[in-house]
Amino acid sequence: MSLTVVGSVALDTVETPSGINKDGLGGAATYFALAAANFTQVHLVGVVGEDFPEEHVNLLDSKGINLDGLERAAGKTFRWVGKYHDDINFRDTLDTQLNVFESFHPKVPEKAQQAPFLFLGNIHPALQLEVLDQTNHQFVALDTMNLWIDITLDDLKKVLSRVDCLIINDEEAKQLTGVKDLRRAAAAIQNMGPQFVVIKKGEHGCMLFGEADEIFAMPALPLDEVVDPTGAGDSFAGGFMGYLANQEKIDFQSLKNAVVHGSATASFTCEAFGPDRLATVSLGKIEGRVQEFRALTHF
Amino acid sequence: MSLTVVGSVALDTVETPSGINKDGLGGAATYFALAAANFTQVHLVGVVGEDFPEEHVNLLDSKGINLDGLERAAGKTFRWVGKYHDDINFRDTLDTQLNVFESFHPKVPEKAQQAPFLFLGNIHPALQLEVLDQTNHQFVALDTMNLWIDITLDDLKKVLSRVDCLIINDEEAKQLTGVKDLRRAAAAIQNMGPQFVVIKKGEHGCMLFGEADEIFAMPALPLDEVVDPTGAGDSFAGGFMGYLANQEKIDFQSLKNAVVHGSATASFTCEAFGPDRLATVSLGKIEGRVQEFRALTHF
Repeated sequence: MSLTVVGSVALDTVETPSGINKDGLGGAATYFALAAANFTQVHLVGVVGEDFPEEHVNLLDSKGINLDGLERAAGKTFRWVGKYHDDINFRDTLDTQLNVFESFHPKVPEKAQQAPFLFLGNIHPALQLEVLDQTNHQFVALDTMNLWIDITLDDLKKVLSRVDCLIINDEEAKQLTGVKDLRRAAAAIQNMGPQFVVIKKGEHGCMLFGEADEIFAMPALPLDEVVDPTGAGDSFAGGFMGYLANQEKIDFQSLKNAVVHGSATASFTCEAFGPDRLATVSLGKIEGRVQEFRALTHF
Repeated sequence: MSLTVVGSVALDTVETPSGINKDGLGGAATYFALAAANFTQVHLVGVVGEDFPEEHVNLLDSKGINLDGLERAAGKTFRWVGKYHDDINFRDTLDTQLNVFESFHPKVPEKAQQAPFLFLGNIHPALQLEVLDQTNHQFVALDTMNLWIDITLDDLKKVLSRVDCLIINDEEAKQLTGVKDLRRAAAAIQNMGPQFVVIKKGEHGCMLFGEADEIFAMPALPLDEVVDPTGAGDSFAGGFMGYLANQEKIDFQSLKNAVVHGSATASFTCEAFGPDRLATVSLGKIEGRVQEFRALTHF
């Protein structure tokens, strides 16, 4: 079944211990769509400026991603500048220029409205509500961040009450709930609405929470080299939702497998700057890495 | 096959958010022996003082642990006082009194010398070398700590060159090797001698490293309540070595299963003060928790 993603498309300048990548293709919706397109038809809803290179549009298009919802507005594309520490699990944001993203209001095209699966990328919760009002989804997953928990918690809670799954990192989960223990934090989030919660723990992998005793824990795959982890979280979400959109049944078992496929997809993203490596993966390569996860975790 | 452990037997005073336990039974060798005794015959080599309560000796004896090597010396038993933070992953040592442990030189009784499996608990590397010189082991695992890495690295490296497996936590692995990436740190440790390396990551579980592409990662089991994590690491080692000592073959597959059985055993330790809960477990209960690990990690 098809899948709609709403979120940022950006030009990123990223410095890591491996080098620097200036004005490269970035943005949460970009990584998500490239990851999910391995599994299913993806509709991308976002905005870029007049400076957005045509080659990036061509790349997304070549992956079969429907770009009817990619608005081109007057002005500059959203830009992000970040620098990773020697310990690549940490980074600093050096600059954020919202540009055309500042006045963005998602307009979801008809086909994208009818997609049964919807991913609300990390944008202002008020915009996420606008998207929910425009779509006929069956399963919605949500990303958010510390900023929205800080400044617009009421809107975020409205969104949470209307989604099926929250994908969040451990610090954000603690911040959102005031609970340190991840199991209890997940339960507190479930009380806000989502049936399923995925908590990402960076280098320590992630956890999936369903019903009371349904817990799945997954370590991260040790990689030979992490060149640039930018977009890994969005690639995870893309692989996760793309896999799910192909399943007959949405239950804890299929979500477990979605977590593994999301992690497998995200592992490629880290191996090169921007989406360079992600854009070259195939379902076969992802399945190969799923087997690596099996070898890593099964006993 | 039988298993010898050399290490501390102590009286611990421990404060956690759940309460305080004064002068309770403690010590690495104690936890190790109680854990391992579920799987195999254990010989305990250590020292206590005149103040060591007979009830503790009786407890160890009731579990079938051979105490021929438990020396009773003039003076007081080794004492440790610790306080855990609200975040129970962190603790402060408030007091350490070595007492009879200060002049301890392990004397390994004949039967314990012949045990094919040997665990060198976290004591001065010079003492660990004394033990290695006294024993006819087939498989030796080692624990150590930041203090020995700091003050007696040369002796520690001599020990490392003579053991098969090092069990160490992530911070110590980084300190010992100067390498941050755990996979490379493990390889650096293997270059010092051990064929296998287990790196413990506390709440994030642990990793096992064998040959180049042999990696096993294991999350921690989410527990309903952690009352007192003291001794969890030693219980892990005890379950790990106890399980191994029962296997026909020592290879990566049996070490994977040993890690799971060690983790399962250690999970009980955290559920009560001191070894109170550990002392009541059975092989059946441990196997039950191994199944919980399977549900948690398999997909």
